[in-house]
Amino acid sequence: MTQKTWRLGVAGLGTVGSGLLQFLSERPDFAPAGGKAVITGVSARSKSRPRPVDISGYAWFDDAVQLALSPETDVFVELVGGSDGPAKAAVEAALKAGKPVVTANKALIAEHGAELAALAEAAGVPLLFEAAVMGGTPAVKMLREAMVGDDVASVAGILNGTCNYILSEMEASGRSFADVLGDAQRMGYAEADPTMDVGGFDAAHKVSILAALAFGCAPTFAAAEIEGISQIELLDIKLAKDLGYRIRLIASADRSEEGVAVRVHPSLVPLGHPLAETRGALNALFIEGRRIGRIFIQGPGAGSGPTAAAVAADIADVMTGASRPVFQAPAGKLRPFVAVAPTRRVGKAYLRLLVRDQAGVIAAVSETLAECGVSIDSFLQKPVEDAGGVPIVLTTHATAESVLTDAINRIEKLPAVLERPRLLRIARI
Amino acid sequence: MTQKTWRLGVAGLGTVGSGLLQFLSERPDFAPAGGKAVITGVSARSKSRPRPVDISGYAWFDDAVQLALSPETDVFVELVGGSDGPAKAAVEAALKAGKPVVTANKALIAEHGAELAALAEAAGVPLLFEAAVMGGTPAVKMLREAMVGDDVASVAGILNGTCNYILSEMEASGRSFADVLGDAQRMGYAEADPTMDVGGFDAAHKVSILAALAFGCAPTFAAAEIEGISQIELLDIKLAKDLGYRIRLIASADRSEEGVAVRVHPSLVPLGHPLAETRGALNALFIEGRRIGRIFIQGPGAGSGPTAAAVAADIADVMTGASRPVFQAPAGKLRPFVAVAPTRRVGKAYLRLLVRDQAGVIAAVSETLAECGVSIDSFLQKPVEDAGGVPIVLTTHATAESVLTDAINRIEKLPAVLERPRLLRIARI
Repeated sequence: MTQKTWRLGVAGLGTVGSGLLQFLSERPDFAPAGGKAVITGVSARSKSRPRPVDISGYAWFDDAVQLALSPETDVFVELVGGSDGPAKAAVEAALKAGKPVVTANKALIAEHGAELAALAEAAGVPLLFEAAVMGGTPAVKMLREAMVGDDVASVAGILNGTCNYILSEMEASGRSFADVLGDAQRMGYAEADPTMDVGGFDAAHKVSILAALAFGCAPTFAAAEIEGISQIELLDIKLAKDLGYRIRLIASADRSEEGVAVRVHPSLVPLGHPLAETRGALNALFIEGRRIGRIFIQGPGAGSGPTAAAVAADIADVMTGASRPVFQAPAGKLRPFVAVAPTRRVGKAYLRLLVRDQAGVIAAVSETLAECGVSIDSFLQKPVEDAGGVPIVLTTHATAESVLTDAINRIEKLPAVLERPRLLRIARI
Repeated sequence: MTQKTWRLGVAGLGTVGSGLLQFLSERPDFAPAGGKAVITGVSARSKSRPRPVDISGYAWFDDAVQLALSPETDVFVELVGGSDGPAKAAVEAALKAGKPVVTANKALIAEHGAELAALAEAAGVPLLFEAAVMGGTPAVKMLREAMVGDDVASVAGILNGTCNYILSEMEASGRSFADVLGDAQRMGYAEADPTMDVGGFDAAHKVSILAALAFGCAPTFAAAEIEGISQIELLDIKLAKDLGYRIRLIASADRSEEGVAVRVHPSLVPLGHPLAETRGALNALFIEGRRIGRIFIQGPGAGSGPTAAAVAADIADVMTGASRPVFQAPAGKLRPFVAVAPTRRVGKAYLRLLVRDQAGVIAAVSETLAECGVSIDSFLQKPVEDAGGVPIVLTTHATAESVLTDAINRIEKLPAVLERPRLLRIARI
């Protein structure tokens, strides 16, 4: 165990950065692998902005790249965020200068992970990003380190706490998506521009990283199939519950002989299933390995304390001197990402229709489904709630996505059907 | 990433050892940190015993110590088991010879962990034991590596799959402990001598290790409070369920200002709680950190495939060249284990009495409890099932263990009470 002092340059002083400064001020004895971590320089957009921590003891850098290159920086900690711009420039600069990098930046790793891994491995320094996925819950370490003695077949879980909070709160309070989102924004649980979260992009970044760790392919955010939760209506939450399900934004990655499918979808999860019972801002993940079987992990996916703890754990890993590939295999040996076409997905589905209250509608819908080869599993018609039409909902047996799309296109054209049927997937978990 | 070949000497060819040989034969490309792992020598009690794997390609050693010392052994893998004897001798020999050790031996680490850690750290080599706790589920890595950026307050969980299987099966089938244990033994799920499992000693070994990792104290099996499940009657399982609980063997470690309490007890867990819903041979663990909050992890706690995968992950960690303390702090800085006296425990309790079917019994019991200062939370009397007496059961508000013991002693002496009241703790989780 080396006794050396590791001088940290910390770029980005938002929630996570402040949390890290706070942690190191509370734990001046932090020396998990023998060595000691000391912050020497910091960088952020504004030097004068009020912060919960005192930064007057650290050298200030206006430019993150200069902080990365400073001779006083042994380890560069990137907490700026964003897939490009200063974050990417500074991480590249640090790696090229042979400095270990710790980052919480999921967009950066999901979109540029393979090229950054190549830089890190060429320089022989670690590039660690535990805090990028599930905040304080060590999903990255589990896949990268603990599962190397296995062949992972799939991962699936809840990776965005904001969406899970909104869905939980819609169910608990009976309020609409827009109302709950508005409150969440006012309370600071959701961003002013919530697109990254509610659009499913944040979860897609995270699951793209997990796919790379699990399957040894280059992280490929561009290949993810993404659907967010902004179209989820309270009616769907209620109908799903009547059918024995809860709606969750499920991020999954599956490997098959055809390739890899990375998906983010609002999905129906059976009540009582651990993912259905994961409430509020919690995150949760199932990892399925050929030898180990199923491992489930659940914990806080965000927040200053948990995420800063994950960054601190990565800093500890740097101190150990461990040398291993950034992803499951060295960057040069990562398999190209072969995406499975969305239309190839086979699974059960939930279809919600709005129809005129007239005889023969159900027969017409059932007939169309039968003609398309879609087999109905359950059927539910609720009393009319307003004059706009009658909602009917059905679940199907496992059906190829292409067949479902065809059926939906045909049902939409039936005279008694008032709007395009709403499709939600039933999670295969 | 080093490209070197790591030559493994594997002592012990039972379930886990055979699983490891199987894994490495299926994955000849196993090179998770650049280097390659190759088995060169093996050792076991009998060379000729039929095995699911072919060992003819490896050098045979009658003596595990000789295998550890062989110049062909770079990494010694100890899968013999037992806290003393050949396992300990061989691990000590390997560490003294400056060789990394990977072991699945919970008894060895729980009973001699601090002295072995001192040997490993003096030699500057890793001593890894992921497979010792929760089999394929990486509890050790989580505590040792992922939680270093936090202060852990407690861990609690289900660490023995055999007990959880027996309790689950008693509930599901309505059969007695002895019947279910007998079946489990015939099917190979339980050992011929089941004491280590059903007596709670196996879980106590495991939680002693987790306490050392979580709190930075020397692992101290001798300080664990241990109660197994062999006294659990079907009646308790049924009564607990009527009260809204399921009985689980809960292993826990808590840190307070007074010291550390390591406990293994059959405990009542609320129905719906993740530990109550952990069924069959699964293991599960809650880790509570001051900053991160609660993390839950669940997965297979035993079995050839999962446990061998954990051993393989440790071998991968050896290859990375990482240097960190064996426990939370270097062996020389581990805090002495200060045990909290069992009588200091404060918690809710379940008391089951067998009383004569006569007037005034409940009044007498209630009065005695009140005199002792025990406050009753709920009360349940079931119809007489046989002529032996009437079972009554009650739960208490949080009470000090010393107070409970006093109350039980006094209730036992009441004329209408037919046997010493049965105490089960209600888990504080």
